[in-house]
Amino acid sequence: MTVDLDTKSMDMSCLGLEMYSLIGELYPICRSITGNGVRKTLQIIQKHIPLEIHEVPTDTSVFDWTVPKEWNIRDAYIKDETGKKIIDFQESNLHILNYSIPIHKKMPLAQLKEHLFSMPDQPDWIPYRTSYYKETWGFCLPDRILKSLPEGEYEVYIDSSLEPGSLTYGELLLPGETTDEVLLCCHSCHPSLCNDNLSGIALVTFLAKYLSQKPLRYSYRFIFIPGTIGSITWLSLNEHRVSSIKHGLTVSNVGDSGHLTYKKSRRGTAEIDRVVSHVLKNLPQEYTISDFSPYGYDERQFCSPGFNLPVGSLTRTPFGTYPEYHTSADNLDFVQASALVNSFETYLTVIDVLENNHTYLNTNPKCEPQLGKRGLYSTMGGKQTTPEDRMAMLWVLNLSDGGHTLLDIAERSNLNFSTIKNAAFALANSGLLKVCLSSVST
Amino acid sequence: MTVDLDTKSMDMSCLGLEMYSLIGELYPICRSITGNGVRKTLQIIQKHIPLEIHEVPTDTSVFDWTVPKEWNIRDAYIKDETGKKIIDFQESNLHILNYSIPIHKKMPLAQLKEHLFSMPDQPDWIPYRTSYYKETWGFCLPDRILKSLPEGEYEVYIDSSLEPGSLTYGELLLPGETTDEVLLCCHSCHPSLCNDNLSGIALVTFLAKYLSQKPLRYSYRFIFIPGTIGSITWLSLNEHRVSSIKHGLTVSNVGDSGHLTYKKSRRGTAEIDRVVSHVLKNLPQEYTISDFSPYGYDERQFCSPGFNLPVGSLTRTPFGTYPEYHTSADNLDFVQASALVNSFETYLTVIDVLENNHTYLNTNPKCEPQLGKRGLYSTMGGKQTTPEDRMAMLWVLNLSDGGHTLLDIAERSNLNFSTIKNAAFALANSGLLKVCLSSVST
Amino acid sequence: MTVDLDTKSMDMSCLGLEMYSLIGELYPICRSITGNGVRKTLQIIQKHIPLEIHEVPTDTSVFDWTVPKEWNIRDAYIKDETGKKIIDFQESNLHILNYSIPIHKKMPLAQLKEHLFSMPDQPDWIPYRTSYYKETWGFCLPDRILKSLPEGEYEVYIDSSLEPGSLTYGELLLPGETTDEVLLCCHSCHPSLCNDNLSGIALVTFLAKYLSQKPLRYSYRFIFIPGTIGSITWLSLNEHRVSSIKHGLTVSNVGDSGHLTYKKSRRGTAEIDRVVSHVLKNLPQEYTISDFSPYGYDERQFCSPGFNLPVGSLTRTPFGTYPEYHTSADNLDFVQASALVNSFETYLTVIDVLENNHTYLNTNPKCEPQLGKRGLYSTMGGKQTTPEDRMAMLWVLNLSDGGHTLLDIAERSNLNFSTIKNAAFALANSGLLKVCLSSVST
Repeated sequence: MTVDLDTKSMDMSCLGLEMYSLIGELYPICRSITGNGVRKTLQIIQKHIPLEIHEVPTDTSVFDWTVPKEWNIRDAYIKDETGKKIIDFQESNLHILNYSIPIHKKMPLAQLKEHLFSMPDQPDWIPYRTSYYKETWGFCLPDRILKSLPEGEYEVYIDSSLEPGSLTYGELLLPGETTDEVLLCCHSCHPSLCNDNLSGIALVTFLAKYLSQKPLRYSYRFIFIPGTIGSITWLSLNEHRVSSIKHGLTVSNVGDSGHLTYKKSRRGTAEIDRVVSHVLKNLPQEYTISDFSPYGYDERQFCSPGFNLPVGSLTRTPFGTYPEYHTSADNLDFVQASALVNSFETYLTVIDVLENNHTYLNTNPKCEPQLGKRGLYSTMGGKQTTPEDRMAMLWVLNLSDGGHTLLDIAERSNLNFSTIKNAAFALANSGLLKVCLSSVST
Repeated sequence: MTVDLDTKSMDMSCLGLEMYSLIGELYPICRSITGNGVRKTLQIIQKHIPLEIHEVPTDTSVFDWTVPKEWNIRDAYIKDETGKKIIDFQESNLHILNYSIPIHKKMPLAQLKEHLFSMPDQPDWIPYRTSYYKETWGFCLPDRILKSLPEGEYEVYIDSSLEPGSLTYGELLLPGETTDEVLLCCHSCHPSLCNDNLSGIALVTFLAKYLSQKPLRYSYRFIFIPGTIGSITWLSLNEHRVSSIKHGLTVSNVGDSGHLTYKKSRRGTAEIDRVVSHVLKNLPQEYTISDFSPYGYDERQFCSPGFNLPVGSLTRTPFGTYPEYHTSADNLDFVQASALVNSFETYLTVIDVLENNHTYLNTNPKCEPQLGKRGLYSTMGGKQTTPEDRMAMLWVLNLSDGGHTLLDIAERSNLNFSTIKNAAFALANSGLLKVCLSSVST
Repeated sequence: MTVDLDTKSMDMSCLGLEMYSLIGELYPICRSITGNGVRKTLQIIQKHIPLEIHEVPTDTSVFDWTVPKEWNIRDAYIKDETGKKIIDFQESNLHILNYSIPIHKKMPLAQLKEHLFSMPDQPDWIPYRTSYYKETWGFCLPDRILKSLPEGEYEVYIDSSLEPGSLTYGELLLPGETTDEVLLCCHSCHPSLCNDNLSGIALVTFLAKYLSQKPLRYSYRFIFIPGTIGSITWLSLNEHRVSSIKHGLTVSNVGDSGHLTYKKSRRGTAEIDRVVSHVLKNLPQEYTISDFSPYGYDERQFCSPGFNLPVGSLTRTPFGTYPEYHTSADNLDFVQASALVNSFETYLTVIDVLENNHTYLNTNPKCEPQLGKRGLYSTMGGKQTTPEDRMAMLWVLNLSDGGHTLLDIAERSNLNFSTIKNAAFALANSGLLKVCLSSVST
């Protein structure tokens, strides 16, 4: 089957605005690893794709972990002695230490300060902090405000709940020609932070929407889960499914202006690793490829030794390496529609390579076939052949011995996968190639 | 068996003149992929070596191809309105588009121009053009003349024939101690072009002549064939023989002043690839080693996936990368006796390595043998040992465990193959080494 | 078993003085490959460690070699016509060509000169020369003295004996938890030369002394042998034992001020090669790692193809590459206590890695275990964890799939072995890791 995934027929600036607009719609919601913020987020995504919502009860055992209590928050503030709100959750949900337990109490500044978090090196930004597994409360605020607080009594109010409930995640499976799966996973637990990871949510949503309109070789599974506990929960509940996952990527930080970065799967030479590396190397822009490390996003769980799935991470600027990371400066100004579009196109190119990376057999393996008598020296797929097309045909014929995928041929010939793919299509149409059965999963 | 192939006892400047003189004798002949020019060329070579001439009839099926009609040409010219020959085949056989069909007709300049080929960027040179598989006619000429042609009627005359006949090639087998073969192949289809490939023809001829006087381990097969269709024809007729080909080289462009260039076989790590790379690395001069590519000379056919023979290509400046390539400037001034000699010596060194690249077994593998009591610390093969000789003996003893050829040892020790070979001979003479049976093909 | 080999509880400057002092005690003794000098040396070492002394009779066949006659010397001099001793063995035992036969004779200068050896490029130093396998006599002297000798009759006197006797070597086995052995070998045949190799003798002596007080996984075999003939003799007599040798090092030139140098075993990727390379790469100082070569110390014999043992050579400045090498300038000023200590510490670190280089199994391989609930995010082994400790735990958990040793993990994570080892101990203590049985030799 010939699959052509490209953006030629799409209005990309329109797509950029749609992704950006979804980010804007989700931005104000206070998300966490559980709670109504996640539910509301997934409901908004359902307006674009038919996401299935899963609820996993508190206290469910998931490998070494336990699904935590559900956290919800309605309001929170700190008032000074004059009754003026000096910190107000309604202004930014980053002001609250995520998973703060309820409190309503007056206390002097010294005692309050033990629960206040700021960034002295970025005095105007609110940091993002969480305390999922240690019950406490706290507020995050700009260091400039923290430093300006006068001595005195402060009123602290957090109207939250931490109670049995459930962990919520969204999932969509697009069935393809085979049951082999490509997994795309984004974490959906961060509150008002745009690049990390509303950008990933938006990209996965619109990628799913695009692919749902295409006939595909692979089945595609999209999951929107809270970080760490979400992937652990998903893997625990879906352990029987993981053998179907042939390739995967975790999606985050795809909206900033930095260049693309690929972190390889633990295997290091999995097909997904080679495919993404090839695609990045053929981009006109800068890129970074780094080896697997057991720190990062949910690839940590997919790549734990008991699973060792071929799941890498394709981002723009990696987490922790830009100053705005996990602060209020990761806002709507920090992500750009053009960067989202560039990330989307790159993901689509990766998927195009995965879909078309067949192994062919040269049906005429002894000496070269006579391309001229088949018209292939002058035209290929309806277009005039270029010298590069002719080289691509010679390479495909030479290496289609059953032991080389088209990606192998692209890498050895130093030609772009799409050039090799087009040459293979033309040769296959002339009967000079046939797909190796073994390269088609069933 | 000890084989010593070197040029110490030869008069190399004499050999250079002989090769150059053969090129001069063959230069005026109008060759093509078929026809009397090839026959005449092979007859001249027969004055040096007992070449067997093969004729393969037109329309013989050879894999995906068919042996074409035989082309012969006697005369051709273009006359202007005054009857003056402005292009004359007798002056240069490059003036004719090779494989032009006969014509005798008058036509205006505009119509004529559709059949004229020149090189605007080299206005004084005649390009070399062919049309083997599309029946047409044409003339090649300096761009300066093309541009100077006035409007008017021109008389076009080509006295050629394109008729059933045969494809002619020459072959010589020198039987060696074993039936394993080394293949040396040159294309013999180009008209008055010296480097490409009268230089290859001359080198192969005199290499065959030299080797025919030597006792050899391998059998050597020399073939003089038209490019592409010739190797396809040879492979089609000799398919049962190819399993005997253990090493091979296509020989072309060996007379220019550029440095040596080796293009590896498709296998990339075949013994011939390693041998030629070793020899080039140990030359005092510059060199280039490049990976296999499915474009080039007849290695394309030998390295097609259905054969995948260990055949590389050892040239000086590669085809297509010097301005004189495929033009009238690839003439007798462009090739030099000294370059031919340097190429010849390099080929001979390659063959010497192939012949002597045995695997030995240290007969005294536990600890070092006492070289001193055998006199090997001071003399080796009748000459005083150098420190390098002593290191070579230690390396050969250390690595002769049945798993390392002498070339492996040369590469690992960073010593020249000939130093290692001499050490191995001395040690074998002292009974400290014996040849592994498995390293001798039968 | 947890083994911790470090120098924290040791007084290293004291150890440095002890090693230096042993060198000083051994320096005046005239050693050779046989004879009383070696016996006296080994007796002095016995004051520190319970060395077993072996005597192998002259003429014993050892592979391709024969144990030579025993050489002893009492006195030697050259007197000029006035009866003045111009060369006196009592002043430096380097003055005598080692293994000189006895002589007492008068001769003119010209005849004497055939037996005199000096170094024109170092006119004040006495060279070290031997003639073990060719019976002759000679004296070594500063070139300045040689050049100043007037014509005349000289009296030559060497009171030596070359008679049937034995070859003497020392050996100590420290049994460990397993019978797998680590071999540490130093050559003990050089006369008054400090770096080569009294430094090696001192280091091995004190290393054996230190290790004898520790519970160990491996058994440790220390041998003090004459170079070449000694290791050949040992291997010949202990051929049945060599399969127990899992790792080995030859120890020499460990007291000079140069940086550490590791020469790999013939295998090149043996565990000892990887361990020493890792240790050197993690030193704050410069180092050199070089490939195996069949020239050098007794690793030549251990690495001969019939044994191919994993034995490398860890030195400071390698033999032959410093001007003082094999001259009277390799004296007590040339070696330094601080360099001996640095070498000792490096050897100990190597042994610590060997001892602890287990393969573990993550007992919780599916997703990450929850480190927080075990307190491992904040404390590890009683100390507060650093970010590096946390990364080390994640790496150990991720790669402990039964296919990676701790050294593999250290290399892949680019962390120091000791950091990885400590993380593994902490995880094992929490039950998150268990040692793979297959990684423990029995």
